[in-house]
Amino acid sequence: MKVVVRAPSNIAFIKYWGKKNEKLRIPANSSISMNLSDAYTETSVEFKKILSDDLVIIDGKKIDGKEKERIGRHLNLIRKMARINFFAEVLSKNNFPKGAGIASSASGFAALTLAGVKAAGLNLSEKELSVLARLGSGSACRSIPDGFVEWKKGSKSSDSYAYSLKSPEYWDIRDIIVVVGEKSKKVGSTEGHKEATSSPFYKARISEMDKKIADIKLALKNKDFTKFGRIVEEEAINMHTVMMTSKPPLFYWLPKTLEIMQSITTWREAGLETYFTIDAGPNIHVICRSKDVRKVKTKLEKIQGVKKIIINRVSKGARIVK
Amino acid sequence: MKVVVRAPSNIAFIKYWGKKNEKLRIPANSSISMNLSDAYTETSVEFKKILSDDLVIIDGKKIDGKEKERIGRHLNLIRKMARINFFAEVLSKNNFPKGAGIASSASGFAALTLAGVKAAGLNLSEKELSVLARLGSGSACRSIPDGFVEWKKGSKSSDSYAYSLKSPEYWDIRDIIVVVGEKSKKVGSTEGHKEATSSPFYKARISEMDKKIADIKLALKNKDFTKFGRIVEEEAINMHTVMMTSKPPLFYWLPKTLEIMQSITTWREAGLETYFTIDAGPNIHVICRSKDVRKVKTKLEKIQGVKKIIINRVSKGARIVK
Repeated sequence: MKVVVRAPSNIAFIKYWGKKNEKLRIPANSSISMNLSDAYTETSVEFKKILSDDLVIIDGKKIDGKEKERIGRHLNLIRKMARINFFAEVLSKNNFPKGAGIASSASGFAALTLAGVKAAGLNLSEKELSVLARLGSGSACRSIPDGFVEWKKGSKSSDSYAYSLKSPEYWDIRDIIVVVGEKSKKVGSTEGHKEATSSPFYKARISEMDKKIADIKLALKNKDFTKFGRIVEEEAINMHTVMMTSKPPLFYWLPKTLEIMQSITTWREAGLETYFTIDAGPNIHVICRSKDVRKVKTKLEKIQGVKKIIINRVSKGARIVK
Repeated sequence: MKVVVRAPSNIAFIKYWGKKNEKLRIPANSSISMNLSDAYTETSVEFKKILSDDLVIIDGKKIDGKEKERIGRHLNLIRKMARINFFAEVLSKNNFPKGAGIASSASGFAALTLAGVKAAGLNLSEKELSVLARLGSGSACRSIPDGFVEWKKGSKSSDSYAYSLKSPEYWDIRDIIVVVGEKSKKVGSTEGHKEATSSPFYKARISEMDKKIADIKLALKNKDFTKFGRIVEEEAINMHTVMMTSKPPLFYWLPKTLEIMQSITTWREAGLETYFTIDAGPNIHVICRSKDVRKVKTKLEKIQGVKKIIINRVSKGARIVK
């Protein structure tokens, strides 16, 4: 049986950086995100008796080496649960550039998880799917449930999962991805996570996390955009400064990233209320209210060096397409 | 009596950010710097019976308001020590752009201190001069002694002063200032210092300072350029990330700043061993060995947007010119 799944990427408002358990991808702190309507992966999985190895094609390119191994290990988890031993044909397409700070591993592993599980004939709960997706790529667990999501750090594998805080319809805020670099990252986030604890600021960061999570959940509950945005921006800077002070330092920002961050601050001072966040890559995510989307887009289009603008609504999580 | 003094600006390798005593400018940590041969202030001071107020002219412009008050308060300290009550004529010239991250307050208050003290007929020790300069602007105390300097934080005003660790001739390293912005800072460092403790990372920063000071003094003693440079660069990033995580956030970097930081990393990976540091402003200080100056300069000149390049040797401290 071939199953096709579409899974959204997600943008974290409270970030995931550093793990309590490396192998099981149990994070040092809980995180909060929204799923993205216009940055997604579509993946089909079919287990086939005829195959002598997993066949993985992403964006039309046959995948080998470490990337394929990681996917193979994830398929093994599914094969083990379903007690099947066929190899799989995995066809996957991203509608956004890979490895540039839009979490392709999040949408990718969420889609692979749901498609693989269904193709293997398993019936898992949303929570079980989220746990399984997490084992493939931490932030993938947040792309399983709908809308605004909390990934509870948990204390063991079975209770470290994401669930929906609010549906996509709850609050119409937008995430405008501003692509300024399409290069694959020098240091991927899996490697980056290992370095997190080498920052002298890491402990102080982690010690504030419970409060930040509580604060942003309250802002979300109250639809308090100003409070929400301030927390989001402060948190993005906090994570990136932990990265910059790691040993060796990790710099994900490009000069253009900093330019746009500073533009957003200037726009805000002039009355256009937007905030930024940035994942482990150079691209900016501009968070704004739906009423301001057009204005923000016009401003962004005028900035030289902006390669692509992707406007996202809040989206459902991973779902079967056919 | 009119006295003319030339005082160097200095670049801190281990930075001063945050105070233990606001009014007395006693710093939270000791710092290490080198005096700069080609970024200096020349100031003449003359106490004149005829004047009905202090007259301060900096770079040809009569100074009023807060800046003049600050200088007036500093002159008051000198008048009180010398028991004179004449106003002063202060003529001052910087050979570099003001308020752009080259410490004009450091060279300015060091020059004012020595010129004022001499013009008032006082005879102070280097330590006393350094203490007095510190009361005008913290980092000015480091522009009094020669060469490589340590500002010992001390515990009270009289023991918070700078002294020479090594003479200018000890080690021929260079500081190349790359001016990328000449705009006066939005937030001056006096205001910035007050914000330091609002960063969640400030405590962790301060707790590491004694070790950093010991490490860099050892690298200086051994003339271990690699170790020295690594500490310098790490420390600059550390201070700026504390600034960025202050409330409100302080961003001194421009996109061009980040571009040059990343160029330096690339050059280093290709074998040209240079390191950067950055003060509370957008300009980059490239630290290199004397043998590499020409190569670095050529590379810097090719970068669009570089407004000025100032090559500094290690300099003597404040001295009387006539």
